[in-house]
Amino acid sequence: MNKKKIVNDPVYGFITIPYNIVFDLVEHPFVQRLRRIKQVSLTHYVYPGALHTRFHHALGALHLMGQAIEVLRSKEVEISDEEAKAASIAILLHDIGHGPFSHTLEHTLINVHHEELSLLFMECLNDIFENQLDLAIQIFKNKYHKKFLHQLISGQLDMDRMDYLNRDSFFTGVHEGVIGYDRIIKMLAVHNDELVVEEKGIYSIEKFLIARRLMYWQVYLHKTVLGVEQMLIRVWQRAKKLVKEGAHLEVSKSLQFFLFNDLTIKDFGNNRDELINHFSKLDDYDIVSSLKNFTEHEDPILSFLSKSIINRKLFKVELKNEPFSEEYIGNIRHKVSERFNISEALILYLVFQGSESNRTYNTARDEIKILYKNGEVKPMSESSDYGLRSTLVKKYYLCYPKGVV
Amino acid sequence: MNKKKIVNDPVYGFITIPYNIVFDLVEHPFVQRLRRIKQVSLTHYVYPGALHTRFHHALGALHLMGQAIEVLRSKEVEISDEEAKAASIAILLHDIGHGPFSHTLEHTLINVHHEELSLLFMECLNDIFENQLDLAIQIFKNKYHKKFLHQLISGQLDMDRMDYLNRDSFFTGVHEGVIGYDRIIKMLAVHNDELVVEEKGIYSIEKFLIARRLMYWQVYLHKTVLGVEQMLIRVWQRAKKLVKEGAHLEVSKSLQFFLFNDLTIKDFGNNRDELINHFSKLDDYDIVSSLKNFTEHEDPILSFLSKSIINRKLFKVELKNEPFSEEYIGNIRHKVSERFNISEALILYLVFQGSESNRTYNTARDEIKILYKNGEVKPMSESSDYGLRSTLVKKYYLCYPKGVV
Amino acid sequence: MNKKKIVNDPVYGFITIPYNIVFDLVEHPFVQRLRRIKQVSLTHYVYPGALHTRFHHALGALHLMGQAIEVLRSKEVEISDEEAKAASIAILLHDIGHGPFSHTLEHTLINVHHEELSLLFMECLNDIFENQLDLAIQIFKNKYHKKFLHQLISGQLDMDRMDYLNRDSFFTGVHEGVIGYDRIIKMLAVHNDELVVEEKGIYSIEKFLIARRLMYWQVYLHKTVLGVEQMLIRVWQRAKKLVKEGAHLEVSKSLQFFLFNDLTIKDFGNNRDELINHFSKLDDYDIVSSLKNFTEHEDPILSFLSKSIINRKLFKVELKNEPFSEEYIGNIRHKVSERFNISEALILYLVFQGSESNRTYNTARDEIKILYKNGEVKPMSESSDYGLRSTLVKKYYLCYPKGVV
Amino acid sequence: MNKKKIVNDPVYGFITIPYNIVFDLVEHPFVQRLRRIKQVSLTHYVYPGALHTRFHHALGALHLMGQAIEVLRSKEVEISDEEAKAASIAILLHDIGHGPFSHTLEHTLINVHHEELSLLFMECLNDIFENQLDLAIQIFKNKYHKKFLHQLISGQLDMDRMDYLNRDSFFTGVHEGVIGYDRIIKMLAVHNDELVVEEKGIYSIEKFLIARRLMYWQVYLHKTVLGVEQMLIRVWQRAKKLVKEGAHLEVSKSLQFFLFNDLTIKDFGNNRDELINHFSKLDDYDIVSSLKNFTEHEDPILSFLSKSIINRKLFKVELKNEPFSEEYIGNIRHKVSERFNISEALILYLVFQGSESNRTYNTARDEIKILYKNGEVKPMSESSDYGLRSTLVKKYYLCYPKGVV
Repeated sequence: MNKKKIVNDPVYGFITIPYNIVFDLVEHPFVQRLRRIKQVSLTHYVYPGALHTRFHHALGALHLMGQAIEVLRSKEVEISDEEAKAASIAILLHDIGHGPFSHTLEHTLINVHHEELSLLFMECLNDIFENQLDLAIQIFKNKYHKKFLHQLISGQLDMDRMDYLNRDSFFTGVHEGVIGYDRIIKMLAVHNDELVVEEKGIYSIEKFLIARRLMYWQVYLHKTVLGVEQMLIRVWQRAKKLVKEGAHLEVSKSLQFFLFNDLTIKDFGNNRDELINHFSKLDDYDIVSSLKNFTEHEDPILSFLSKSIINRKLFKVELKNEPFSEEYIGNIRHKVSERFNISEALILYLVFQGSESNRTYNTARDEIKILYKNGEVKPMSESSDYGLRSTLVKKYYLCYPKGVV
Repeated sequence: MNKKKIVNDPVYGFITIPYNIVFDLVEHPFVQRLRRIKQVSLTHYVYPGALHTRFHHALGALHLMGQAIEVLRSKEVEISDEEAKAASIAILLHDIGHGPFSHTLEHTLINVHHEELSLLFMECLNDIFENQLDLAIQIFKNKYHKKFLHQLISGQLDMDRMDYLNRDSFFTGVHEGVIGYDRIIKMLAVHNDELVVEEKGIYSIEKFLIARRLMYWQVYLHKTVLGVEQMLIRVWQRAKKLVKEGAHLEVSKSLQFFLFNDLTIKDFGNNRDELINHFSKLDDYDIVSSLKNFTEHEDPILSFLSKSIINRKLFKVELKNEPFSEEYIGNIRHKVSERFNISEALILYLVFQGSESNRTYNTARDEIKILYKNGEVKPMSESSDYGLRSTLVKKYYLCYPKGVV
Repeated sequence: MNKKKIVNDPVYGFITIPYNIVFDLVEHPFVQRLRRIKQVSLTHYVYPGALHTRFHHALGALHLMGQAIEVLRSKEVEISDEEAKAASIAILLHDIGHGPFSHTLEHTLINVHHEELSLLFMECLNDIFENQLDLAIQIFKNKYHKKFLHQLISGQLDMDRMDYLNRDSFFTGVHEGVIGYDRIIKMLAVHNDELVVEEKGIYSIEKFLIARRLMYWQVYLHKTVLGVEQMLIRVWQRAKKLVKEGAHLEVSKSLQFFLFNDLTIKDFGNNRDELINHFSKLDDYDIVSSLKNFTEHEDPILSFLSKSIINRKLFKVELKNEPFSEEYIGNIRHKVSERFNISEALILYLVFQGSESNRTYNTARDEIKILYKNGEVKPMSESSDYGLRSTLVKKYYLCYPKGVV
Repeated sequence: MNKKKIVNDPVYGFITIPYNIVFDLVEHPFVQRLRRIKQVSLTHYVYPGALHTRFHHALGALHLMGQAIEVLRSKEVEISDEEAKAASIAILLHDIGHGPFSHTLEHTLINVHHEELSLLFMECLNDIFENQLDLAIQIFKNKYHKKFLHQLISGQLDMDRMDYLNRDSFFTGVHEGVIGYDRIIKMLAVHNDELVVEEKGIYSIEKFLIARRLMYWQVYLHKTVLGVEQMLIRVWQRAKKLVKEGAHLEVSKSLQFFLFNDLTIKDFGNNRDELINHFSKLDDYDIVSSLKNFTEHEDPILSFLSKSIINRKLFKVELKNEPFSEEYIGNIRHKVSERFNISEALILYLVFQGSESNRTYNTARDEIKILYKNGEVKPMSESSDYGLRSTLVKKYYLCYPKGVV
């Protein structure tokens, strides 16, 4: 049976599933579950088109991997069919460990990084598919000698970033985030088993970095998005607290497991399959239906927060380059506590602060390497005559109910 | 407070909310609920990008309404601000009566057409917003003397169609469905209070009709989409049956009301608000979380169907221009009943047939009218020298589990 | 030396020159000359973006040929490297016989069809490139047993049409002419050495035919374009007449050869190279600079027409479905003759009529063939349930100076 | 007569000509002449789609001006109809002083800056249109008190730049040059009669600056483009030299005037109309047909250079960050002189060097101003936390015939 399915993708036109094993993986419930996890969590509250899923992103990254491999092979980089297949599998599954609302609830539902979970999923699938994922796992873990294969999956210019910047720009409508992914991919090369970019690609890289920076501040760290995601975290914290105090909360069975237990990855020890079994049942639908149930819960904090999210009555979010003064925050806390008539202990669910940061380009680790026509290789920070800054930009936010101040 | 908010839309760039009352309506939970109802139900099972919502469509149609009004005014059609506002409200709310999975479960959850519900919603909002929707409702019901305002909301060339064809093409990636909406809108005019199209727009209209036809067969009535939507209907039928037989089923509170009662609109009589209250709590999330719960239900039919949908193990769908013979269907029923070891009474949940039809252009009612330079007006069917056919194209489908035949 | 050059194309992104011989042909002055011949003549007088050249179109068609070959090979159609290379050469050169202003002055500068000239050019290049074009010429002449290779170059679904519809839509901005070329190409297959389209492509073909029809009436046969092209022909006719009467006209040396001789292809007999030598020097620049010179010529007809074109003071163009009555035309002739104070003999340069026609789909020859899943092949006219009409649509035009009637 | 014509533009969709006087100006031969002057000279030798004209750019900038005025008015900036009309006229005509091959031959055909000529053209048109351009000229000369109107025509964020970056990206296919013009325009505001950008637009401005930088190095100063443009200048220099030495050269009458005279603007003194009369006859066609004639001229330098350009046999171009050493250049000169057997005096036509430079953002004059929510205004260089560099990037080029070294 020929499994070379073609999928319509508004971003790239048509995506071809390149290998039978990849097709079988796509069909597996673990991957199908990614259809129910939005790529960018609650970003659609600001950009209503941003409803695309981790599933779609996985297919997109797979597509770009195919292009990158084709380009490298045309430049006489040796990549065997086994390696190409393994890289395709690894990129398809690189985010499979994401749970509901992706980054928003990461570490909250269960205290573990999604990449760790991705690896567990892969190992689990490797058992199911009788070790066909061996090489993919090696590459994913960066244990394979052709480092560039890992760099295509995880690095400053990996197919993950390429696709998510493209895709998130496309679905948000923030066209300014569009990157010249096709040109960058055409400029990729390999030098000493490491991924490099040909000299002619320097301007495209600069543009890519600036587009990424813009996407961070205009989309991913948009203050309204930040605010509502923090509200969602507070809902979960409140729910856990109530459960511990013995309250009854209606959530789906799969979510109960995570609500009633404080889990870290260590709790599973050797019992990888139990964790995966529970985790693979979770998706955005569990969270949203819980929120809908919570809107009618008797705890005023839980229902207020849940209603606010469901009906999009969002909190006010202030964003600044410096931390908020204790006095300023204290004043707001005070007002909120008066208005809502709640004790100081509960105020943290309604007034919360934090910070987010982003670096346009990180010169500290694994710089993008530029390959010159004369064979020389130099880091991007020395190649661009524009001057790339590594400065960390940090912004502080403060959220609280509207109409209080 | 200036409520002229701008929304990023990947389809049109930027959408401006034109009036304060429209902004207030957009903010109302009834409209926000449309954020949780996908425009094209399960179409994303074939076109993974098609996750856009009724909310986004409502904003898009609102945007096009603004353009149409501007064009007509520039041609000296008189449209007062009150009328423009009313038309904007009416188009914003035209689909507010849609429930979970839009057309798929229409008449199934409750036996009523979504437009009837839209009207109830509008009346309800009219009470809340102190009669500010009076004129919008009149226009929506086609009771206003300037017929063209109603035709912009509901007619062969309404802003609803314009937007959904655009939007569905965009998010499915079926670029062939793209229509020249901007040109068609620029060609709109009014003659005797009716919407007409200037002569120069004839080719654009032909193209629009063919694009629409293509979208029907390639997207809306795509056999895989048809199949999975029918499966979903069977899940609901089975669930109702089980409930009547006394089984316990876990569904959200809002859905229980519809699961435990066989409702028609008559049941509500004068009690419009009760119906709206219950109905406005429903969205796609209720259905999907129920499906997820059902996957572990003890009834083998219910759990089999639910798992099939959730994990996308879809049924085989045959599509033909003629009805399937009784013999052919009988044979398949027999095989399925053997394979699944189920009684004849249950077979209707696993083997089901039906038909879908579409007319490229309906000459029977309300034809598109073409306005000639000499002032003459002729129906499109007489204007196009290509020859538009009104023939009804009907296709028959038959669905059953894969691997049986 | 690696000649795999990449060219930026706004229509397709990047075009790769696939073979060294193709690169060498692209570099040849005969092909470079196509950079100076606009694809759609004076269409830019209506659509100011339509300045793209035959050169760009040749590259675009080459690109699509590469895609088509890749698709067919993936369906196990055998195409050797030699055949692929020959098909690439043939499509690159298919329009090389076009002269200045493409179709507008075809048969006017010299009475010969451009395809005949294309063949002469190819034979000439075959001598230069030492018979490397043998197979390409065979395919171009449809003498090769794999008919589908010729059909990819010249047929109802050839890469020529695919590219020009795409490209002309793109540069005119008539987005409605956009076709689903990528989908159509993905649906191509071969049956009995003939090109066929898989069943799933039927709607795309319908859309393609309607888009083509729209492009004909909205762009190629747009009445203003028709008019100015006819004016250009009249300039040339007048110039020839004047030359015969002994007048002095300033034109470039290469153009003189064609101005002073009434040439048919027979005049060259065996002297192919002389014809090609002269013809290959011609391009749009010769015509436009002649026009500019003519604006100051003492013959009032010649200078009036030339000034009208250069300064875009276009004639009035009437377009109808029926021929203009003799009376109507007579009346206009009379008025023009009075206004311009010219004799009846000259009136034909200022008042002229003609007709243009287009068939949406020609069922009379070489129909598009549809390949069904069961292996059956049926012509498109029997496959589409929409009903494709073969009717010839004919329109009559009448042109004369503005402000006369 | 209603002159509100709509023009199809592939970049923006539809452009409406907003005023009768603007329509009349568009129709004037001076503006129509811009149809025959390519926006980016010989850039199409690298990017074959880049054939768009100054005419198209003028319409595009006019379109954006309309958008900017609408945005500013919606923010309660007072702009009267007279002012809007004047700004529209000024932007339409801002580049009307460009001659053949735009910047390439600027100062070469006649030693004057194109903006000075634009002003002369406007004054000339002002006479023709009976002082209807008075205010437009005032604004163009920055003599009007509402400075922002001038800044929309000429400044760091003027509609000229917005359009040319958009348009050049579009037609070259260098999508990375795409800027968020619509978002930037939506963020424009006025403070103390000066153009400012709202705080939310900072990232879009950064992106705009980087996109512009990329366009400079990847398109405008692309080394192949640089090279061929320098070759063209050498052709003209050689032609002038030969003419002075008494040689006969065939060029169009309009070009003769410039070939036989060494003109500066002072030569015209009060005789503005004579200059405009001669200059307005020039366009790209004069240069290309001359080149074609020159290919057969007996002077080997002139014919070699002309043939090289016409047949696109381009010179080798080296590009470096530091000047070329005298030794290196001397060596190449020597080789070229040997190979071509020409005297040292002639070598400057075949071996030539120079430099080009670009600044991503100029902090030295008229910085972009950012308007904060609290009413404060700060220059962009202090607003961006990315850090905008004002460093001048300079590159040195050296051109000589291929195959010599």
